[in-house]
Amino acid sequence: MDPRPIGVFDSGVGGLTVCKAMKDIMPGEHIIYFGDTGRFPYGTRSIETIIRYSREITEYLKSRDVKMIVIACNTSSAAALDVLRRENDIPVLGVIDAGARAACKKAEMAPHGDLIGVIATRATVKSESYVKAVHSISPRIKVLQRHATIFVSLTEEGWIDEEVTRLAAKKYIQDIFDEGVRVLVLGCTHFPLLKKAIKDVYPDIELVDSGIEVAWEAQRILAEKSLENSGGDGGIELYTSDITDSMERLKELFFGNNGTKISKLIIDSRI
Amino acid sequence: MDPRPIGVFDSGVGGLTVCKAMKDIMPGEHIIYFGDTGRFPYGTRSIETIIRYSREITEYLKSRDVKMIVIACNTSSAAALDVLRRENDIPVLGVIDAGARAACKKAEMAPHGDLIGVIATRATVKSESYVKAVHSISPRIKVLQRHATIFVSLTEEGWIDEEVTRLAAKKYIQDIFDEGVRVLVLGCTHFPLLKKAIKDVYPDIELVDSGIEVAWEAQRILAEKSLENSGGDGGIELYTSDITDSMERLKELFFGNNGTKISKLIIDSRI
Repeated sequence: MDPRPIGVFDSGVGGLTVCKAMKDIMPGEHIIYFGDTGRFPYGTRSIETIIRYSREITEYLKSRDVKMIVIACNTSSAAALDVLRRENDIPVLGVIDAGARAACKKAEMAPHGDLIGVIATRATVKSESYVKAVHSISPRIKVLQRHATIFVSLTEEGWIDEEVTRLAAKKYIQDIFDEGVRVLVLGCTHFPLLKKAIKDVYPDIELVDSGIEVAWEAQRILAEKSLENSGGDGGIELYTSDITDSMERLKELFFGNNGTKISKLIIDSRI
Repeated sequence: MDPRPIGVFDSGVGGLTVCKAMKDIMPGEHIIYFGDTGRFPYGTRSIETIIRYSREITEYLKSRDVKMIVIACNTSSAAALDVLRRENDIPVLGVIDAGARAACKKAEMAPHGDLIGVIATRATVKSESYVKAVHSISPRIKVLQRHATIFVSLTEEGWIDEEVTRLAAKKYIQDIFDEGVRVLVLGCTHFPLLKKAIKDVYPDIELVDSGIEVAWEAQRILAEKSLENSGGDGGIELYTSDITDSMERLKELFFGNNGTKISKLIIDSRI
């Protein structure tokens, strides 16, 4: 039993899908979420800049005495997970490891068991983090990656079930489908909202939601280390570094409409 | 004659289209361009945050002794032009005034002379800056605005001449076309790259490129105030606050491939 909160962060509001999954799985835990909307998106930034931003947020969460940090952002997990693990003595989890593990399990049961597809931002693809994570589990599995940058803005625009979105899905996925991909990792916390559109075009592809997988992993690790808080208040504090008019719309899109308010908090340690 | 440089800034690389137009029109001027790619895009940020970023960049440009500042970003022109004009004693130009003036001229000659359409980012639309700028010239003209957020990422993705882009254009523009819009302001420096795609769908719409218009206005004001530098070196210095892998590709897309290098410069006065 450990009453301390869990810290979750993302470059924006997409990571709220991870918060939602964590709340479903561990209803007693208190969660502090930080979305860096003032500097979103990370997917088009350099690795060096992403590490700087991730460090700043981690420092803030540690100042709030969290018992675990969940990086709910694929781009930041790819760029900063190893650094943050080295520099901190609490468990730091990333969506990529969790997603890769689930994908390997699914691939074993799929018709083309030696092949996993990944769609993500440019920065995540370039980091090859999913490739490395899969190979550390099953070196024989081939990973085919594609960036799907426009999926981020299509999701935020709410163009979830549109012809534009299905056309974009075809442009991004068709060639790896032709190469045999039937297990596809949604390597960006925005993409789970496009599950239906992707399934409309590719009903035979099985989708892996890294956000849900990391929520399960968080529960497993808290249990292993006896850090759970099953009888806690289940409170959730949402902070973002900028609040815009579309924030309420985006919060509902990614988190649902349950009355939880977002507060503004600027984290920026540069002098 | 004034040998001092002209400062140009934008939230990212889109403003390079304005630089390019300025170089064509005023080949002797030395230009210092700053693209805030580390905090791009501004279009989804709050007005308060956009003003803060614009002030920081202006301070930097003034430290470089510029004789004029051109805000090559619609979002920043909408949010910060008035503030920056009040706070600085050199001429500050924004793309919105220039674009509105050109649109009013074109509208007078168009079949529906009492109607102008504007497509821009959410922040620019919400500011109603084009509406106010048009009404200060011709109060009787009706302005119909639509945000076209996804055009930004479609442009940066290089999906310039694609079915996805034409479909998105239809979703954004069809209803204002039906209402009679035949003069349409491209109210974001990214959008001029989509001229062909928009014209494919709407050959009867006349497009106004605010970036080219502000370049002409800069020349006019420099001449009026005897601040030109027609015999100068025509040098151009490009700075951005983050350098990514796709930067070269984006620079070519917006500026052409003429050997000019981009340097990294972080501007961030927050303590």
